[in-house]
Amino acid sequence: MNFPLVGRQLGLLLIVTSASILAVATWSCGEVLWGNTDELQPLRALMLTVAIGSLCGAGLWFGMRGKAEAIGRREAILLVALSWFIGAGLAAIPFWLWAAMAEDAADHPFSSFVNCYFESMSGLTTTGATVLTEVSSLPASLLLWRSVTHWLGGLGIVVLFVAVLPILGVGGKRLFRVEAAGPTPEGVTPRIQEAARMLWMIYLGMTVAEIVALKLVGMTWFDSVNHTLATLATGGFSTHNASVAGYRSVGVDLVILVFMVAAGVNFGLYYQVIRGRWRSAYRDTELRWYLALLGLGTVVVTNCIYNQPYATTTGETAAAGLGSALRYGAFQVVAVQTTTGFCTADFDQWSFVAKTVLLGLMFVGGSAGSTGGGVKVIRCLMAVKIMWAEIEHVFRPNVVRPVKIGSATIDQDMKLSTIVYLLGIAMLTVVGAIGLMMLEGGGSLDVTTAMTASIATLNNIGPGLAKVGATCNYEWFTDPSKYLMIVLMALGRLEVLTIIVLFFPRFWRSD
Amino acid sequence: MNFPLVGRQLGLLLIVTSASILAVATWSCGEVLWGNTDELQPLRALMLTVAIGSLCGAGLWFGMRGKAEAIGRREAILLVALSWFIGAGLAAIPFWLWAAMAEDAADHPFSSFVNCYFESMSGLTTTGATVLTEVSSLPASLLLWRSVTHWLGGLGIVVLFVAVLPILGVGGKRLFRVEAAGPTPEGVTPRIQEAARMLWMIYLGMTVAEIVALKLVGMTWFDSVNHTLATLATGGFSTHNASVAGYRSVGVDLVILVFMVAAGVNFGLYYQVIRGRWRSAYRDTELRWYLALLGLGTVVVTNCIYNQPYATTTGETAAAGLGSALRYGAFQVVAVQTTTGFCTADFDQWSFVAKTVLLGLMFVGGSAGSTGGGVKVIRCLMAVKIMWAEIEHVFRPNVVRPVKIGSATIDQDMKLSTIVYLLGIAMLTVVGAIGLMMLEGGGSLDVTTAMTASIATLNNIGPGLAKVGATCNYEWFTDPSKYLMIVLMALGRLEVLTIIVLFFPRFWRSD
Repeated sequence: MNFPLVGRQLGLLLIVTSASILAVATWSCGEVLWGNTDELQPLRALMLTVAIGSLCGAGLWFGMRGKAEAIGRREAILLVALSWFIGAGLAAIPFWLWAAMAEDAADHPFSSFVNCYFESMSGLTTTGATVLTEVSSLPASLLLWRSVTHWLGGLGIVVLFVAVLPILGVGGKRLFRVEAAGPTPEGVTPRIQEAARMLWMIYLGMTVAEIVALKLVGMTWFDSVNHTLATLATGGFSTHNASVAGYRSVGVDLVILVFMVAAGVNFGLYYQVIRGRWRSAYRDTELRWYLALLGLGTVVVTNCIYNQPYATTTGETAAAGLGSALRYGAFQVVAVQTTTGFCTADFDQWSFVAKTVLLGLMFVGGSAGSTGGGVKVIRCLMAVKIMWAEIEHVFRPNVVRPVKIGSATIDQDMKLSTIVYLLGIAMLTVVGAIGLMMLEGGGSLDVTTAMTASIATLNNIGPGLAKVGATCNYEWFTDPSKYLMIVLMALGRLEVLTIIVLFFPRFWRSD
Repeated sequence: MNFPLVGRQLGLLLIVTSASILAVATWSCGEVLWGNTDELQPLRALMLTVAIGSLCGAGLWFGMRGKAEAIGRREAILLVALSWFIGAGLAAIPFWLWAAMAEDAADHPFSSFVNCYFESMSGLTTTGATVLTEVSSLPASLLLWRSVTHWLGGLGIVVLFVAVLPILGVGGKRLFRVEAAGPTPEGVTPRIQEAARMLWMIYLGMTVAEIVALKLVGMTWFDSVNHTLATLATGGFSTHNASVAGYRSVGVDLVILVFMVAAGVNFGLYYQVIRGRWRSAYRDTELRWYLALLGLGTVVVTNCIYNQPYATTTGETAAAGLGSALRYGAFQVVAVQTTTGFCTADFDQWSFVAKTVLLGLMFVGGSAGSTGGGVKVIRCLMAVKIMWAEIEHVFRPNVVRPVKIGSATIDQDMKLSTIVYLLGIAMLTVVGAIGLMMLEGGGSLDVTTAMTASIATLNNIGPGLAKVGATCNYEWFTDPSKYLMIVLMALGRLEVLTIIVLFFPRFWRSD
């Protein structure tokens, strides 16, 4: 294991993160210069963090010289895993410093560092679970930084690395492999750097488009920017206590819905479209199933909540009628399956069937290669086909029928790793729920809350049911539970294996 | 699909089941002749059932002539699946007829046929879940018949077929394959008929041994026989409302514990021991892990309940001290992992950790080729090794390390089918729980009860937690829920696939 090399890259990560914080600080500085004194304290916190981050980063970068060889597979894995834990650590500091320095923030959740770390890990993993009850009590620049963590995490700090900083050389491809979520039978492109740069441009383009669109439907620039960063990363942090419903605008709901759907699509398909291969994008199997599931979920949920009483997240009773049911049903289905986790309705009040559908979709998640979490549509699709083939194998042991996704045949190794992954996620969900129940003191946490908190963090969704429902938050958990959920969020975002391997002694042994 | 052939064999099944009922009826007749008038009504019910069963059986046997060709794979599967549903149907009739005819049984649970069917399916699948609150209110001969269903189901009606009635010819091997639970890397023997006959003798020998042992520790002959039939089949029906704790005897607890452990061992190992191959039995990997899990579970649970207050199933408070904790802890761990489901303590009152361990062991279950349910120790062991290999594959993609159980290498197909099976069971458990919650009317059934009822029936255990806990029963469920659990019990006992395939249109198409 080439530790100096890993250390050097982590130094770079700290510098890049500090630069992002600096960008937010610059905006904050502008506010202060134009007379908004509320931003003075957060500005101090941000600037201090920039200083800490860039000093540590520079120290690591220049201190860890090491051999300039190409990054190996194990180094790449270690780097990706550490990136999220260390990145989240730095990203948490502005919150914590602000709460420590501000006079009026004595009882603020951010007085405790674990809350800050939970919030920043939730941001970077694009989970969107929050410890804040009064979101709007946070200064504007910290709200912005909170949203920026989403955006940075969204397409992956590492993809950013690959696209912007072609320093890693051959390591770039390896990193991308580890990072790009889920198995893609076709791959994105062999020319990984060009692709990463392109993906980055697409992400940026979509960001600009959504900001403008949200502004056009009546949001302030500040809120547009924040919600855009959270939407495209399938994150879910809002600047409004009542999340998206706080705007009471069909236009806002619709724009965000459209961009959530877009964020859950494999970004490789946009790349193909830009390169003129409309056809292959249009005929993509996963895309079709992804859209079909969203459609089917919407139909079922809308049917369940049609003319049933339930509250929106603002606390008002949702209007009766099909239009309203479709509005809230479609939004919540999309928000949950794409693992964004924005809320307009308190779906905890919905019928058992509707909640079951939402829970199922939470597991499925977005497409591979999107910013969405969950186990990914293509894995579910493969699992169904593999199980189908296994069942047929029982009564026709001599018939060998290849399992195909589109035109690509899934080989035996990929079959096994897909099913193992799904079984692993199922086990982790249960282990997470049991762990939460134990840490909270057996019996004091109900099973629904424990299970959905585990699902919502492991699949990077945000809200769950019962005590972690649409109108609730995660502050009330004990610190050990929060640490467990921090690990669950990272596990989910990094496809589990990236972190699990670190606990294998063999991983650390030299070849 | 050769339906006449299947029909003919089902006729035989009905005749054999009727013969078993006749044996119970003979005992009942003896009671009546010696002056026990309580047995008059159940005797009538039993005799009527014998008449119905043997008439239908003979009709099928002689009516369905068909071609006398060897039984095919698909016919064998259909036969096994139908055997359990039809066998349970016939086995339920004595309960129902008795309740219909007896003057004092107007409000008895057995007045409803679904309850009778639930009870007989629970018996034949060796689940041991009951709809009876007052077990002892049942006449002795029906209690005996209830236990006999366990015993018949135990080693499998079909193994009985293969051993006693060498009529099926080549089909015997196929049937055995479908029936013998779980994958055995070494197989039992190529000479299947000899082996089946031998297994049958072993089963019979163990039955005699346990009856004598239980009599020696102070049970009546009647109770010894009943509890023996339930123990060796890893069933769990007791003749006592408080289950085994009702005898308040350490001796009884100990004898039953030993025989439960024995019933959860692969019967193929006993066969090997009898043939003089001590060594290979002693070195069996699954046996070692099976015993290790029982030991580990006992240590953890004993530690959890040591000096904690809890009630036995008689309602008395269990004695404090290590001896008592070991007695109740070991018994409950063994009863749950072997999927017998006898109870001496109300483990619903135990700590969260103890309950979690018990739930985990419920899934694991007994050994392959035993009468126990669950997913089997060997499958879990294989899954752990496969997952381990998958994790190593991430950081050492070029290292190919064969996955071995003992000296046998697990090939890719077996790996895939094992993991698919486990994922399938996990999904079925959740589907079962959701199904129960929906059928009971969303929200009225708590998650713990729904989950553990699903686990307890699918894994053929019997008791679960909360409202299906050690001192509770299944009568209060609505009829649709009972039907669902009847299906879950059959699915679990027949390794899921045997029944699932029937719902595939392709299964029914001719080659």
